[in-house]
Amino acid sequence: MPILTLTTDFGSKDGFVGTMKGVILGISPHVEIVDISHEIAPQGVREGAFTLWRAYAFFPLGTIHIAVVDPGVGTKRRAIAAQVNGHLFVGPDNGIFTFIINHPIYRESKPEFHHLNNHKYFLKDVSNTFHGRDIFSSVGAHLANGVPLSEMGPVINDPVLLPFTKPEKTDLGWKAHIAYIDHFGNCTTDLPASRKDNPDGISIQILGKKIKGLSTSYGDHAPGALIALIDSEGFIEIALVNGNAAEYLGASIDDIVEIINTKPKR
Amino acid sequence: MPILTLTTDFGSKDGFVGTMKGVILGISPHVEIVDISHEIAPQGVREGAFTLWRAYAFFPLGTIHIAVVDPGVGTKRRAIAAQVNGHLFVGPDNGIFTFIINHPIYRESKPEFHHLNNHKYFLKDVSNTFHGRDIFSSVGAHLANGVPLSEMGPVINDPVLLPFTKPEKTDLGWKAHIAYIDHFGNCTTDLPASRKDNPDGISIQILGKKIKGLSTSYGDHAPGALIALIDSEGFIEIALVNGNAAEYLGASIDDIVEIINTKPKR
Amino acid sequence: MPILTLTTDFGSKDGFVGTMKGVILGISPHVEIVDISHEIAPQGVREGAFTLWRAYAFFPLGTIHIAVVDPGVGTKRRAIAAQVNGHLFVGPDNGIFTFIINHPIYRESKPEFHHLNNHKYFLKDVSNTFHGRDIFSSVGAHLANGVPLSEMGPVINDPVLLPFTKPEKTDLGWKAHIAYIDHFGNCTTDLPASRKDNPDGISIQILGKKIKGLSTSYGDHAPGALIALIDSEGFIEIALVNGNAAEYLGASIDDIVEIINTKPKR
Repeated sequence: MPILTLTTDFGSKDGFVGTMKGVILGISPHVEIVDISHEIAPQGVREGAFTLWRAYAFFPLGTIHIAVVDPGVGTKRRAIAAQVNGHLFVGPDNGIFTFIINHPIYRESKPEFHHLNNHKYFLKDVSNTFHGRDIFSSVGAHLANGVPLSEMGPVINDPVLLPFTKPEKTDLGWKAHIAYIDHFGNCTTDLPASRKDNPDGISIQILGKKIKGLSTSYGDHAPGALIALIDSEGFIEIALVNGNAAEYLGASIDDIVEIINTKPKR
Repeated sequence: MPILTLTTDFGSKDGFVGTMKGVILGISPHVEIVDISHEIAPQGVREGAFTLWRAYAFFPLGTIHIAVVDPGVGTKRRAIAAQVNGHLFVGPDNGIFTFIINHPIYRESKPEFHHLNNHKYFLKDVSNTFHGRDIFSSVGAHLANGVPLSEMGPVINDPVLLPFTKPEKTDLGWKAHIAYIDHFGNCTTDLPASRKDNPDGISIQILGKKIKGLSTSYGDHAPGALIALIDSEGFIEIALVNGNAAEYLGASIDDIVEIINTKPKR
Repeated sequence: MPILTLTTDFGSKDGFVGTMKGVILGISPHVEIVDISHEIAPQGVREGAFTLWRAYAFFPLGTIHIAVVDPGVGTKRRAIAAQVNGHLFVGPDNGIFTFIINHPIYRESKPEFHHLNNHKYFLKDVSNTFHGRDIFSSVGAHLANGVPLSEMGPVINDPVLLPFTKPEKTDLGWKAHIAYIDHFGNCTTDLPASRKDNPDGISIQILGKKIKGLSTSYGDHAPGALIALIDSEGFIEIALVNGNAAEYLGASIDDIVEIINTKPKR
């Protein structure tokens, strides 16, 4: 039974996601559909790209991931399907797969991108406002039925990629950035923890606050303490124990986080 | 594997929907359950009716749709099951199926309504506050198991229907109404786009703002532009590019949208 | 096909729940996953405990319930798996299973608790921040595959239990407490309705307001009426017809609800 995931900015109120699932199950009755998120901020392509990247590799190889954060729906922006790292992806060509293409966790094969232009695998009537239903769900379901990617349209080599920050080496350590804020208010940075020079001797500056050292877990400190620790993807994260660090700090995506080596390695 | 959809005002916090799924899977272990929405406004029968109508026809024929927006639970309001357009419906008899009965997309057969009064297909203990669990989930699961509709109770011919607005012809064009506001803030009207007289020559007035012409897609205009376009069901919709039209306009359901033919057909 | 439920405070925005499902389906492809709630308040162990307790017994015997509200993740708090009343439970040992252990609806066998310390059934890399993914999903999926509970780690007899209020007998009736507030604003108490002395002759005092008698259903009174009735679990509940009682009363968990016998039984 193939697995098909959904990541959208459709919310859960309007029934748009249910409609997509109706289309999918009508074409591929035995597929297992899993929601990754439908609460991506409206038009939040980068947020959707990050969220899908963080989740996808925990699914079995061969999983089909449909991502629809699509402010350009109905314009000339391309629709694409891709194979990256043994997973299949379907969505608008607007950068939604940027982190998957650029941050490969493992690589089994060269990525492959196709421009979706074979109407045979779309719904009969394609609206200008809901390609999630009329194109992406339909194409994803046909892929789940075993239709090869090459049937979907011609190969392209220039998928849209979003710009994104990278941590920069400084004299004192690293200048990192907030890459994502989760619903607990935890602020993940773009700095892999493995790049810090000395686990015992760093301090962190963020929005006027200073944090000494890395903690092992949220529960190592009293409620209300501002701490840094290693997140579940191996990046440095800022958290407020039993609280919301982003609200406390007034933090936003791309805000600077300075990591300073206080006891440099010898 | 039969499909069973759920549409409720239960929200996602309290576990009520999970409980319904437990009941359903206990009776019909192989059914495929799909959520349409659980974020219908509390007691929002009309909103639930609209949301279910918009989604249902994208599911395969034979799908069972349970809808529970039910301020009258535990009173003498009837519980019903219905067959309309090749789909099955289960819920309170309070108008929740109005749009499905009145806006048929296709018609395979005469609608059929049954008053649910056969306790054999209910849970043993029926509360006065949670028929979604004790009656509707149980009946839906038995229907999924192939129990015929006629087993559920006697035929009735007077299901409750909600009043709802219809667009009115005016000297200058149409007086339409906002029929639904989605989580993006897009405002769908009750006017099918096919009824406008001239696609090139209309202007729209809504809450003191004027919109010239129909756009093809959201992305045809700069962010912040107030536009009108054809929604995914074929109705005229008001949108703010990359923004929230309903917030911008202060719009509510039933607000008037005037469509004016500026260049009448000859 | 075994059923596996999920109850967390992860929200629906970040994809954490989708990630858990990816892990589960990678290990146990045929399991049926059902969400109970992911909107438990952050770190709301007691709220999660109540929500899981209210839902679990409506699932078939043998269902596996994973619960992750886990402020102590990565500390020395134990991870546990349990068998209670014919259901299996997996989660942190922080009281999340308190109500299930203490409010048994039926008892088929003595509860059995195991300390999860067999890394063979964890993901290879275990983070300090996401045991929902690295331990609980993995263990739950192996249980779904039929691995016996005893394989997961040694028996323990001292699972953590949360303190919680109980109704107290008074001269005039009962002093009860608000046990849970649902998304409609209905306030459930900890007093089983069967304990009231006389259904016809009680009055209820809550936060300065007085309610006379028990109603049969929400719809028996006009919108806006503050009423008391019997909830779907058999406890006394305070509700505002077509409104939000908790907002109207300014009610919080543990607030006192006095039940007074106005016409004592003879």
